[in-house]
Amino acid sequence: MSKKSNRCASPVIGRRGFITAASLAGAAALTPSVVAEAMPIAPDPTNKAAAPSKLVADATSSDVELAIRYLVVANRILAHENVVDAYGHVSMRHPLNPEHYLLARSRSPEQVEIGDIVEYTLDGEPINDTRPPYLERFIHGGIYAARPDIHAVVHAHSEEVLPFSISTTKLRPVIHDGAFIGAEVPVWDIADKFGPDTDLLVSNIAQGRDLARRLAGNSMVLMRGHGFAAAAPSLYEVVRLAVYAPKNAHVFQAALLLGGKVKPLSKGEIATRVGGPSLKPDTPAAMRAWEYWARRAGVADLLPPRPGK
Amino acid sequence: MSKKSNRCASPVIGRRGFITAASLAGAAALTPSVVAEAMPIAPDPTNKAAAPSKLVADATSSDVELAIRYLVVANRILAHENVVDAYGHVSMRHPLNPEHYLLARSRSPEQVEIGDIVEYTLDGEPINDTRPPYLERFIHGGIYAARPDIHAVVHAHSEEVLPFSISTTKLRPVIHDGAFIGAEVPVWDIADKFGPDTDLLVSNIAQGRDLARRLAGNSMVLMRGHGFAAAAPSLYEVVRLAVYAPKNAHVFQAALLLGGKVKPLSKGEIATRVGGPSLKPDTPAAMRAWEYWARRAGVADLLPPRPGK
Amino acid sequence: MSKKSNRCASPVIGRRGFITAASLAGAAALTPSVVAEAMPIAPDPTNKAAAPSKLVADATSSDVELAIRYLVVANRILAHENVVDAYGHVSMRHPLNPEHYLLARSRSPEQVEIGDIVEYTLDGEPINDTRPPYLERFIHGGIYAARPDIHAVVHAHSEEVLPFSISTTKLRPVIHDGAFIGAEVPVWDIADKFGPDTDLLVSNIAQGRDLARRLAGNSMVLMRGHGFAAAAPSLYEVVRLAVYAPKNAHVFQAALLLGGKVKPLSKGEIATRVGGPSLKPDTPAAMRAWEYWARRAGVADLLPPRPGK
Amino acid sequence: MSKKSNRCASPVIGRRGFITAASLAGAAALTPSVVAEAMPIAPDPTNKAAAPSKLVADATSSDVELAIRYLVVANRILAHENVVDAYGHVSMRHPLNPEHYLLARSRSPEQVEIGDIVEYTLDGEPINDTRPPYLERFIHGGIYAARPDIHAVVHAHSEEVLPFSISTTKLRPVIHDGAFIGAEVPVWDIADKFGPDTDLLVSNIAQGRDLARRLAGNSMVLMRGHGFAAAAPSLYEVVRLAVYAPKNAHVFQAALLLGGKVKPLSKGEIATRVGGPSLKPDTPAAMRAWEYWARRAGVADLLPPRPGK
Repeated sequence: MSKKSNRCASPVIGRRGFITAASLAGAAALTPSVVAEAMPIAPDPTNKAAAPSKLVADATSSDVELAIRYLVVANRILAHENVVDAYGHVSMRHPLNPEHYLLARSRSPEQVEIGDIVEYTLDGEPINDTRPPYLERFIHGGIYAARPDIHAVVHAHSEEVLPFSISTTKLRPVIHDGAFIGAEVPVWDIADKFGPDTDLLVSNIAQGRDLARRLAGNSMVLMRGHGFAAAAPSLYEVVRLAVYAPKNAHVFQAALLLGGKVKPLSKGEIATRVGGPSLKPDTPAAMRAWEYWARRAGVADLLPPRPGK
Repeated sequence: MSKKSNRCASPVIGRRGFITAASLAGAAALTPSVVAEAMPIAPDPTNKAAAPSKLVADATSSDVELAIRYLVVANRILAHENVVDAYGHVSMRHPLNPEHYLLARSRSPEQVEIGDIVEYTLDGEPINDTRPPYLERFIHGGIYAARPDIHAVVHAHSEEVLPFSISTTKLRPVIHDGAFIGAEVPVWDIADKFGPDTDLLVSNIAQGRDLARRLAGNSMVLMRGHGFAAAAPSLYEVVRLAVYAPKNAHVFQAALLLGGKVKPLSKGEIATRVGGPSLKPDTPAAMRAWEYWARRAGVADLLPPRPGK
Repeated sequence: MSKKSNRCASPVIGRRGFITAASLAGAAALTPSVVAEAMPIAPDPTNKAAAPSKLVADATSSDVELAIRYLVVANRILAHENVVDAYGHVSMRHPLNPEHYLLARSRSPEQVEIGDIVEYTLDGEPINDTRPPYLERFIHGGIYAARPDIHAVVHAHSEEVLPFSISTTKLRPVIHDGAFIGAEVPVWDIADKFGPDTDLLVSNIAQGRDLARRLAGNSMVLMRGHGFAAAAPSLYEVVRLAVYAPKNAHVFQAALLLGGKVKPLSKGEIATRVGGPSLKPDTPAAMRAWEYWARRAGVADLLPPRPGK
Repeated sequence: MSKKSNRCASPVIGRRGFITAASLAGAAALTPSVVAEAMPIAPDPTNKAAAPSKLVADATSSDVELAIRYLVVANRILAHENVVDAYGHVSMRHPLNPEHYLLARSRSPEQVEIGDIVEYTLDGEPINDTRPPYLERFIHGGIYAARPDIHAVVHAHSEEVLPFSISTTKLRPVIHDGAFIGAEVPVWDIADKFGPDTDLLVSNIAQGRDLARRLAGNSMVLMRGHGFAAAAPSLYEVVRLAVYAPKNAHVFQAALLLGGKVKPLSKGEIATRVGGPSLKPDTPAAMRAWEYWARRAGVADLLPPRPGK
């Protein structure tokens, strides 16, 4: 994995956006007006290659503080939108150190606060924290190690998705917001490599790495009888994927039951949608969704104000 | 399209109702007691032809202010009733200029406020507004241009309706409140004309016009793998259609699964129901629903008080 | 219909319970402590025949005031438990005059207040009220006229029940709380007698009477493509029936989909359950449900306090 | 049944945890800071046999007070998570007397308060309480008498589970959190022994004992057309089982409908999961769930503070 290519990609506004170099002393000191000055600057959407190296020069500790703030918001959104319940978690690659990631200590996403976010090595070792970690943190490290392009990961047990994890009927994207799950959604059966007597949990790094191998270059992998892991280049993208994957699964299931023929998205539609404007984290359509989800979850005051307000 | 025939149809109380000529200085100044004086006067339900010309004389700028107020209420209702989420939108033809329509700037319906409503040309150009618009505003303009009888449009992605957009099984009205979707609900597949590589979004006026052609003279068109567009002569009618279309789809799907034979509404029942009293925007049954939906959405204070209170 | 047999049956605490003769000046004056003195006295559960004549002597105007209070509570419960939405209604035979019934003016059940309750003749004429009535009030009068044993009626459009109204698959009671729908649930198709061009609404007394004929001696009748009407000897019983009928329908549908054989309730089980202790309106199990539903709906303060508190 | 083996198993923190000997005068006096001193001490997870006898020495009346507090929390959680509604109940074996159990008086779980908890003999006789009991309390006593290893029981009517109680299709665990229902879930049909004319309720101790015989050594028994009873060694375990059993049933049903082949959990997976770390009541994963559920139900202040806060 190349450190350089990941170094300063802002996990919030996407791999091509960046944060201005406002000096933010600490998360506790982040008032809305201060954060307002740290608004995203519109990136050049046509220049994917140039951006990362440019961003290196601007990376500061405020990236981390804003990242933590957004990660808390993502936790609350996923809880409020019923993607996670007492269990499930969301992480983000560390903005300054691609060999580390940020993840809450062992706490339900609905309760996660700024002080709960912990830094981990890719092997799952906490940095300067002794509180109990999530048992399944190895899902995150396994994927970050295997996929330099990935900056955010969600693990969840959505009821609508789970049937496809135990059935030979394959999950497919059938609605435009389901395109984000990708054309291929592999199923990882822990029993294939680790035998028929596990508790199904990803409880060590070897299992995390095996899961990442099954994910391969896709955006989502189902975990048989357990849930899914979703991976994306930014936090916004992985939240959107995790929110709409259950809806896509539900619509697909219902359409199958109608008895007629079902038309899924074409490969071209999937590719165009994933690369299209509403997925990009710094577009109005993306900001609209962040605002909507965060307001509903009661954490809108953790977000920087929207441009144009 | 004849301007005259649309000129002063009040988008709120329907094409045959009107607003008394209270002079309302601006939306911000609308107090409940002032709005109370602008209550609908019962139209002659048997005289469709006579009303429009009569209404011309009464049209004032207060029509626009009341229309905006109702449009905000409609946004909040559709969000609260789970017809729309972060995405989806509702518009209304401009009460004074049928070549323009009113639609929120790019914001989730649950957050739309009076100041968010923008005026657009039928081609989707904003009038005096520089804030980001909805990418898919062309759905609205396309329909208003093709259908002079239509004064309000909803675009949404309801999960209950979506299965019918990707299945060869056709959606049909089976419950009395589902009659409003009409006897025929065509499916528009963007790929038919725009090829297999779109992102499924209606992102230019050519696509909006093609969608309107598929809608033709019906009340609702499904958009394959994406959602639906609903069109009606008044805002009340389109909100009701959008609220009950998912229920009708759900009941139809469940009935199909029961395995027996299913009896849909007859053509006569659909026609009678659509023309019947509870659909009319200025009847007690309609006012009852506005009050119910608006209270639940927490925006009842934006509505004029109900007669008899 | 015999007036005598219905005269003083308290619609709240059932045909065999009664209210002590506390002098209650009016609904507005009913404080919780005053109402506490008007608690039900345990009836003799084995003596159905003796009770009514005894009750005649105790009937006072406070019966009506308490009835109205409970009817408001029933409206709110049915709304909160998703049995009704903007539409649907619940009525009660008048405690002092079995030829009249009590029903809200045209207002959504979630908004009904004490002042909204109106007295109607069995033909649907309001007594001293000029506010718009429900169009479909004839459902209630039709049933009260045909069934002297019935003291409360609900009309609703529950999504879980509706599929059975349009399918040849018959609804059956399969869970113990579903027993209240009865062994036989007929389907009334308005088209059978009134032709294929109605709007499906019960909009005159002839249609109400025809519906009651199809209901016959049962507890519930489905209305094709429209909803259901439920009838019971007391308000508690009809609320319970209306709350659990959708659950029974949902469980039955799901069981049918499992593909195996389904065992419904036996005739003996239905009869025993309907006559059993938890259905009786004045038992602890019934009081428990009233308290639960009313608290959730935010109207517990309208109920008299529970014995033993 | 051996009294000794059950004597002082703390129903809250599991049969191997215990409470320090803080002197707690009464439930009303339990402030959060006082309760904080009564935190569980980490048990030896490898030593199942040694713990119980050790615990005897530490058993105090504070065990009972803490148990009651947790039992109230369990009531509220089951109501908030839609496992129970107006009906259904949860009990716990008495911490000091295994021949008694604790259960609310006849009240809906959502309303249960500390003062509502009553002590019963295994035959269902209340100790020093004259308020109406649950009619079906015999479910609890029947199971406690037959199963010395069981310390907590839930009875509920979940809609997702009920279809399997009336179908010949057997419920099976298919998701990791469904493992807690066990490899075998028997169905008890009250008609088998008590004939075709019951009201399906478990209304005497003979029926409770027959139900317990059908449960046998399993964790959950379905009651035909009625609901289920779940049994576990601790309150945490039975709450978790009751919360996830409906999800498992729903996922299984949906997977069956997909039409392909379905892979359930293996026997080894079920055994490992049930014996694994996240089920144990005193692990971080368990505490995380208690905190999550209790906060959502609005009763977090009844729980002792979490370690590490």
